[in-house]
Amino acid sequence: MDETISIVLFSGTDDKLMSAATLAAGAAALGKPVKIFLQYWGLNAFRAAGIDTDHGLAPEAGEVGKAAVDAAARAGMATWMQTLRMAKELGEVDIQACSASMDIFKLKQSDLDPLVDGVEGVAAFYINAGEGQIVFI
Amino acid sequence: MDETISIVLFSGTDDKLMSAATLAAGAAALGKPVKIFLQYWGLNAFRAAGIDTDHGLAPEAGEVGKAAVDAAARAGMATWMQTLRMAKELGEVDIQACSASMDIFKLKQSDLDPLVDGVEGVAAFYINAGEGQIVFI
Amino acid sequence: MDETISIVLFSGTDDKLMSAATLAAGAAALGKPVKIFLQYWGLNAFRAAGIDTDHGLAPEAGEVGKAAVDAAARAGMATWMQTLRMAKELGEVDIQACSASMDIFKLKQSDLDPLVDGVEGVAAFYINAGEGQIVFI
Repeated sequence: MDETISIVLFSGTDDKLMSAATLAAGAAALGKPVKIFLQYWGLNAFRAAGIDTDHGLAPEAGEVGKAAVDAAARAGMATWMQTLRMAKELGEVDIQACSASMDIFKLKQSDLDPLVDGVEGVAAFYINAGEGQIVFI
Repeated sequence: MDETISIVLFSGTDDKLMSAATLAAGAAALGKPVKIFLQYWGLNAFRAAGIDTDHGLAPEAGEVGKAAVDAAARAGMATWMQTLRMAKELGEVDIQACSASMDIFKLKQSDLDPLVDGVEGVAAFYINAGEGQIVFI
Repeated sequence: MDETISIVLFSGTDDKLMSAATLAAGAAALGKPVKIFLQYWGLNAFRAAGIDTDHGLAPEAGEVGKAAVDAAARAGMATWMQTLRMAKELGEVDIQACSASMDIFKLKQSDLDPLVDGVEGVAAFYINAGEGQIVFI
């Protein structure tokens, strides 16, 4: 039995980042190892220079959805980054940048937030995922 | 062996709702237990007041894609909600709202369509998913 | 133990197609059987007449993201289709169109690129997926 949860984090809007962080924190709280593999816009969101900025929402949010999310933030809901940091404190959460996406954006690991533990290729991703569940966000 | 299929339904456009309903109905027809966990815009789509309204399509549909989907609907293709209701009649399909998303939108279960069976947190989601497959839509 | 990786390919933008192709190629290189199930806009991208055209990017790419992806393409990065063709040469990669999506777009298999191996329903998809991992892109 392999309890690892692997998340391919492709999207980088605040709503999907929050969903990924929640799934990571829940798994960590249950003692499951969590592996996050950052691609494309998910990777972009972890640039050191912009991790705290507004990353927008999925287009389907609309004005009403955006207002609800903004109100929750003002009422003190943890951000995705705070949730992910908490997940890392709670359990085993490893965050790797996809090397192919690093090449597209011409990024070096030093350009990324320290929450990112390293850079790996897709083969390493699968090996680390083992037989555990994989979700693509 | 755990045959359960768990679907984190984050998106709430009609095309993704239809895809989720189709995957749920196919699994139910094969006798697999199905767990659906509603987050963000997927949860929003299950508001009792709006479940039958048009929830739009992914932006990539474009005008041509929208015309094809609309024509299929006029030709009598089942809606996502009809497909999901059928899936519930066919097999074991449990639909839970994510408690964190309920908080964001300030929803109570009575605001949701009766297709939704309850409200749970992410830990309960993982426990119910067991070792089965998880897809994020 | 079931090493099969199954990908429900719902989205048809070039970034998600590339992510799917990369996950398929990585799995094939490791000797894992790969099953790709094409729905909606993912299916649309495999029309024989348009497989080489620009399928756009997720809206969140923005102008800066689009410029980075375009520059990588000009610098010779393989396209998603080249990556998928390579994956098929490397290992066992089976691509099936979802019959329900074929109906929506009134497509016949002869309308699709020869990379597509056949058409199947969702029940066949699950049977071929077995107990392996499923990702929805």
